[in-house]
Amino acid sequence: MNDFSKTRQRFYLPEDLIYLDGNSLGPLPLAARSRMQEVLQHEWGEQLIRGWNQCEWMGLSERTGDRIARLIGAPGGSVIVGDTLSLKVYQALAAALALNPDRRLVISDSGNFPTDLYMADGLLRLLDRGYRIETPAPEDVAASLSDEVAVLMLTEVDYRSGRLHDMQALTGRAHELGIITVWDLAHSAGAIEVDLAAARADFAVGCTYKYLNGGPGAPAFIYVAPELIDSVEPALSGWLGHQAPFDFERRYRAANGIRRMRIGTPPVLALAVLDAALDVWDDIDMSSVRSKSQQLSELFITEVERRAPMLRLASPRDADQRGSQVSFQFEHGYAVVQALIADNVIGDFRAPDVMRFGFAPLYVDEQDIVEAADRLDIILSEKRWDNPAYFERAAVT
Amino acid sequence: MNDFSKTRQRFYLPEDLIYLDGNSLGPLPLAARSRMQEVLQHEWGEQLIRGWNQCEWMGLSERTGDRIARLIGAPGGSVIVGDTLSLKVYQALAAALALNPDRRLVISDSGNFPTDLYMADGLLRLLDRGYRIETPAPEDVAASLSDEVAVLMLTEVDYRSGRLHDMQALTGRAHELGIITVWDLAHSAGAIEVDLAAARADFAVGCTYKYLNGGPGAPAFIYVAPELIDSVEPALSGWLGHQAPFDFERRYRAANGIRRMRIGTPPVLALAVLDAALDVWDDIDMSSVRSKSQQLSELFITEVERRAPMLRLASPRDADQRGSQVSFQFEHGYAVVQALIADNVIGDFRAPDVMRFGFAPLYVDEQDIVEAADRLDIILSEKRWDNPAYFERAAVT
Repeated sequence: MNDFSKTRQRFYLPEDLIYLDGNSLGPLPLAARSRMQEVLQHEWGEQLIRGWNQCEWMGLSERTGDRIARLIGAPGGSVIVGDTLSLKVYQALAAALALNPDRRLVISDSGNFPTDLYMADGLLRLLDRGYRIETPAPEDVAASLSDEVAVLMLTEVDYRSGRLHDMQALTGRAHELGIITVWDLAHSAGAIEVDLAAARADFAVGCTYKYLNGGPGAPAFIYVAPELIDSVEPALSGWLGHQAPFDFERRYRAANGIRRMRIGTPPVLALAVLDAALDVWDDIDMSSVRSKSQQLSELFITEVERRAPMLRLASPRDADQRGSQVSFQFEHGYAVVQALIADNVIGDFRAPDVMRFGFAPLYVDEQDIVEAADRLDIILSEKRWDNPAYFERAAVT
Repeated sequence: MNDFSKTRQRFYLPEDLIYLDGNSLGPLPLAARSRMQEVLQHEWGEQLIRGWNQCEWMGLSERTGDRIARLIGAPGGSVIVGDTLSLKVYQALAAALALNPDRRLVISDSGNFPTDLYMADGLLRLLDRGYRIETPAPEDVAASLSDEVAVLMLTEVDYRSGRLHDMQALTGRAHELGIITVWDLAHSAGAIEVDLAAARADFAVGCTYKYLNGGPGAPAFIYVAPELIDSVEPALSGWLGHQAPFDFERRYRAANGIRRMRIGTPPVLALAVLDAALDVWDDIDMSSVRSKSQQLSELFITEVERRAPMLRLASPRDADQRGSQVSFQFEHGYAVVQALIADNVIGDFRAPDVMRFGFAPLYVDEQDIVEAADRLDIILSEKRWDNPAYFERAAVT
C-alpha cells in the first residue's frame, strides 16, 4: 500500500485549497519546476541544436510512453506520446478502420467526449465511402454490436457521470464479432486499474494533463497492440514516424513498432515536464490508487448526501462501476460550483446541471473530503445560488 | 533600421559559441525563462484549472498567431498556432483539395521537406480517390501547372539549398489556372519578407522553432486567406475548432474564422514560451532583418570562398534568390561540420554532402561570420576530416 501523505508533498498545492478537479487538470509536480529550468537553461540554452542528441530529446516520446505503459497494463514499446488526444483518436480510428476494410459502421456511445466523436465525424466525412457512426446509450453498447461493425470506439470512464465501461467484456464481445476496439483512457490513466494487455484491447489513447499531472495542454498518448502495430499504415504519416527520418527519403517507410505513430517534431518542453510529472508515479501501485480513490469517493458521497439531500447522485452508486470521480446533479449546480471555487474548493461543472468532483489519492485525503462537504453544506444552506456573482460563465476543459 | 546589437542581448548564447543553425533551432530568448517560471508557479501552480480563464490560456493560440501574422504579411485573425507543422500541412492540404473537388493532381517539388510530402502521401492514400502527387524539380514547377492541378504545395525556401521560390508569381499563375496554393514558410517566417496578403496565398503553414525561436518542438502555425476560411470544412475537426467547445454538443459546428483550424486542447506551456519569444519581434521590421541577413550571407560566401575554394556553393549566388541560409557542398562535409561543432561553430549537415549555415540577424553579426570562416579555414587546412572522431552519426532536425 502506497503512503499517499508522501506523494502529496511532491505537488505544489495552494494554501487552504481543496482540489477536486484533477480529472480536468492535475496540479504542479514540484519536480516539473526544476526539470523545466534544467531544460531551458542547460539543454536548450547551452546545447541548442545539439540537445536533440546530447539531451536525448528525440527519445522523450518513447520514454514517457513506456512510463505510462506501466500504469495501463501495456508492455514496454507499445505506447508513445505526442500531439493531442483528438489527433490520437483520429490516428487510432483511421488505423482501426483500415484493419477492417469491408465494414462501414462505427459504434461509440452518447456518453463519449465530444472531441472523440467530432474527430470521427471528420474522418468518416473525409473518407466519403459510406461510413456511419452510431452513438447508443452507454448501457446499449453491447447490444449494438454485430458483425457489421468495423470499430467500437469508447471512452472507458464517462467524463460527466464517471460511469465505467467493462473494457474486458466489451473487447471480448467485440473480438468475437470481428470488431476492432479503440479505448479512450482520458479519465482512466492514473485513475483506475487498466490492463490493456489482459483486455486484449487493440488501440487505446489518452491524455496526460488530468490524473498524470503533465500540465495544461500536455501531450497525449497512443497504445497499439504489439501484434497489430506492424500492420498499421499511418494516416498521419509524418517524418518522425518514418523508419529513418534523417535520411530524408522521398518515400515514406513506416518505422518499426510504435514509433510509426509519431507524426511531427516532438514537443520537447512539454515532454520534459510530463517526464518529471511521471517521476511521482515510479513507486505507485495502481491497485493502491484505485482502492484509496474508492474510499475517498465513498466518503464524499456519504458526507455530501448526509448534508445535502437535494443533490442527486449522477454517478453509479456502486464504486466498482465508477471511475475516480463523483458527479451530482442540482438545478443551481453552476452557481454552486462557482461559490465552491470562491470558497477554495475546486470542482467543475458540465452543462446542464452536473457538478463534478475528482479524487486523486496522490494529493487528496480524507480531511479534504470532509472539509469540502462542510464548505458545500454552508453554501447550500445559505442558498448562495441567488448571488449573481456566481453566474459568470466559465470555460474550463 | 533595427539595432541588432540590442536584440542580441535578449538571447542566451553560450560563451564563445557562433551559432549558425537558427534555421534548425533558434536560441533561448531570455524572456522565455521568466515567462515559464511565471506560468509554472503563478499560473498552473496557483490557478490550476482556473488558469484557462484567469490566465487567458485559451487565447494563446490566437494571440501568438496574430503576432506571427504581422511578420508574414497576414491580417490579424488569419493565423493560429498549435500542433506540429506536419499536421498543419495535412489540415491545409485537406482543405485545399476540398475546395477544388473536381481535380486530382497535387504539384509539389523535389526540394520540398520530406514530411510535407509524407503527410500528403498519407492523406491522398487515405482519400483513395485517384489523387496523385508530382514533384518536379523546383525550376520546373511553373511549367508543371495546368488546369488539371488541384493544389500547388510548396516550401518557399528550400531546406537544403536555401533557394527561394517566387511566391507571388507562382501563386498568380496558379490562380489563373484555378489552382489552390499551400505555402510552407518553415524557413521563411522571421527569415525573409513574406507578404501573404499581397501574394494572395490561399493557405500557409510554418514552424516556430527556427527563426522565431519558440524552442525545441514549438508548435506550428497555419494561415488561411480570410476570404476562404468560412468555406473550409476542417478534416481534423477537434473540439477546440468547434463554435462552442464547452457546450459539448453532439454535432460538430466549425467555429467562425481561423479558430476552426484549432484541433485539441492547446499546449499552454509551449505557447507561453513562444509568446515570450515573440516579444523580441515587437519592434522588428522584416525589411531590416532581410537586408541584414543578406549582408551576413554575402559576407559569409565571400569569406569562405576566399579561404576554401574546394567548397562548392550549393545555394543560389544571387542573394535575392536565397532565403536566410547558405549551403556548401563538400565530400567531407559531414566530418567538417562535426569538426566545426567541436570548435564552437554550429552549422548542420544534410545528406549526402551539404553543409548548411543559417544567418539570423537578431543574434548573429559580422564578427561571428569572419570568425566562423577563420575556424573553418583551420579545419580545412588541417584536413580534420581524417579524424574518426568527427564521423559519429548525428540526428538533428
